[in-house]
Amino acid sequence: MFPKISRSTLPCMKESPGVVDLLGVLAYAELSAYARMTEDAATLAPSLADRAALSELAVAEYAHFSLLRDHLAGLGADPDAAMTPFVAALDAWHAQTRPADWLQALVKTYVGDGIANDFYREVARHLDPSVAKLVDEVLVDEVRSQFAVERVRAEVEADPAAGARLALWARRLVGEALSQAQQVAAARPELALSLVEASGGQADISRLFATLTEEHNKRMAALGI
Amino acid sequence: MFPKISRSTLPCMKESPGVVDLLGVLAYAELSAYARMTEDAATLAPSLADRAALSELAVAEYAHFSLLRDHLAGLGADPDAAMTPFVAALDAWHAQTRPADWLQALVKTYVGDGIANDFYREVARHLDPSVAKLVDEVLVDEVRSQFAVERVRAEVEADPAAGARLALWARRLVGEALSQAQQVAAARPELALSLVEASGGQADISRLFATLTEEHNKRMAALGI
Repeated sequence: MFPKISRSTLPCMKESPGVVDLLGVLAYAELSAYARMTEDAATLAPSLADRAALSELAVAEYAHFSLLRDHLAGLGADPDAAMTPFVAALDAWHAQTRPADWLQALVKTYVGDGIANDFYREVARHLDPSVAKLVDEVLVDEVRSQFAVERVRAEVEADPAAGARLALWARRLVGEALSQAQQVAAARPELALSLVEASGGQADISRLFATLTEEHNKRMAALGI
Repeated sequence: MFPKISRSTLPCMKESPGVVDLLGVLAYAELSAYARMTEDAATLAPSLADRAALSELAVAEYAHFSLLRDHLAGLGADPDAAMTPFVAALDAWHAQTRPADWLQALVKTYVGDGIANDFYREVARHLDPSVAKLVDEVLVDEVRSQFAVERVRAEVEADPAAGARLALWARRLVGEALSQAQQVAAARPELALSLVEASGGQADISRLFATLTEEHNKRMAALGI
């Protein structure tokens, strides 16, 4: 007959593939955001203090990546294999949304990360509680990005035309994110399906999008755009 | 008469200008190395695991920057003002030594940072003990860069021609560093002078260069080039 396989030799099997996919996409999202924010800080910040402030957020993203990678390894998954399916889509999103100036970089950090974080958090709510806790831990960085809100708000109050341009930019960020998400879903239907199931089915998907839109609108209001 | 000024209102005055200059150049060296290593990791690493390994070194550089900046602020100095005189030279060094591939990036991390760190450590030895302690704390990262040594060594053993090319690259890194250091010394003679004095005069400058060369040769031997 078959040899008895102890649970400890197959540590990844106790988790649904949806968990590894979610942690994989989130890990690469953090690793790529860290690199992009570092570059934006180095090339666009108007002062060394501003450069340090955005770099500090970037370094926090790296720490999140590191937690997620270690958790994947702890589950018995290969972190590189878990991230690889999402590299092209996330790289494409960053290439399509390269900020042209410092304010665009700040809006991208706050609005782009915000909507992505809401998405990951909502999906994680329906998965294993320890995963939901890890994802929540990774995503608590609203306080840190407060400096971005203050900078953008001050600029928009001083120059309403800048506000109109940044509102357009924020819409483009969301549009490009949805476009990349659709491509991932089309290329990996089993992931899309597991996320739909994890979310509790179609009705909850509608609720998910309502939540994302509501939170996005709150962030736009916080920025004054 | 003049009002009595307590020491606490002039906290920067108890330190020589050489301390602020040294911490300023070191702080910007760490901030710029963090950005460059992050970019090298994102664009040159052959795998996500390698990218993470070099990114981890980059993030450690950011942590060092953060310590130095806070120490400068604690001395009553403006960290941006302390770093600004050195931005052009350090940016030029990075522009002149942009790695063309992953092995060049690893050699740059190990050899370039190594010689710079030896220089800062030697100069700091002659300054205030608390500064020397801080600088030592910031520069203890040999263990972390061990992965770079192992990777390069394995490659060079497998392909001696690659070793010859990397030896040339390492010489170029040192040459460009000396060239930038000379330009800084020419542009800021008072800094050069305070460093000579801090080092204990001309005789010690000769000893400093002997030490730097010796440590550099040890690193080249460790890499097998």
